[in-house]
Amino acid sequence: MDQTARTREVAHAYVESLERRDWAALAALLGEDVVYDMPQTRERISGRERYVRFNQDYPGDWHLTARRVVADDRYAALWIDVRVGDDELAACAWLDLSDDGLISRITDYWPEPYEPPAGREHLVERY
Amino acid sequence: MDQTARTREVAHAYVESLERRDWAALAALLGEDVVYDMPQTRERISGRERYVRFNQDYPGDWHLTARRVVADDRYAALWIDVRVGDDELAACAWLDLSDDGLISRITDYWPEPYEPPAGREHLVERY
Repeated sequence: MDQTARTREVAHAYVESLERRDWAALAALLGEDVVYDMPQTRERISGRERYVRFNQDYPGDWHLTARRVVADDRYAALWIDVRVGDDELAACAWLDLSDDGLISRITDYWPEPYEPPAGREHLVERY
Repeated sequence: MDQTARTREVAHAYVESLERRDWAALAALLGEDVVYDMPQTRERISGRERYVRFNQDYPGDWHLTARRVVADDRYAALWIDVRVGDDELAACAWLDLSDDGLISRITDYWPEPYEPPAGREHLVERY
């Protein structure tokens, strides 16, 4: 198995461990000094223990499914379908793996719905 | 050059053609029936001609740089730094390529800044 195949496997396992609330499995994928970054709120969490805690404490009955995993060498991009009750949202996560095969950085984006600007109705269809 | 390397090249060329306003170069990367999807506004644009027009008409002095391209077979994920005047934003775009090597689908996410919810200050640092 080459590096890309290993990265792809780690990316799938990351989403699955979160969905199963399997904190030991999640921790086993993370480097001790993993950094979790949320650029939209300019929040950052440093360290495996804190990041696992963050997920354990995260409120709501959230569910995650990987819609798409794109892996290339030590990088992966995750397109994640997130469901919290009746709300559905797609998230984008970027994973960096280090030499030891563990996740060293996670960057999460949570794009919210918004109303489109006027002026492009002639090019666009709404769904 | 294998499929992943070709996809990576197309993904870079996509961002560069937009940044240069090189509409002929952009069109040459797109399948005639390309679908451009913005899930946050539930807007969809169908067809190469309309999608090029959409970019030509897009208001503001916008600038794009690929921060990261992750390519895997016929899929690419693009992490794009967007600058419009003094505003900076990161976008996530997902590209699908078809058999002919052209882009058949683009899904764009535009994650906006927001205020973090209370209750996780003990785990998080702000920057």
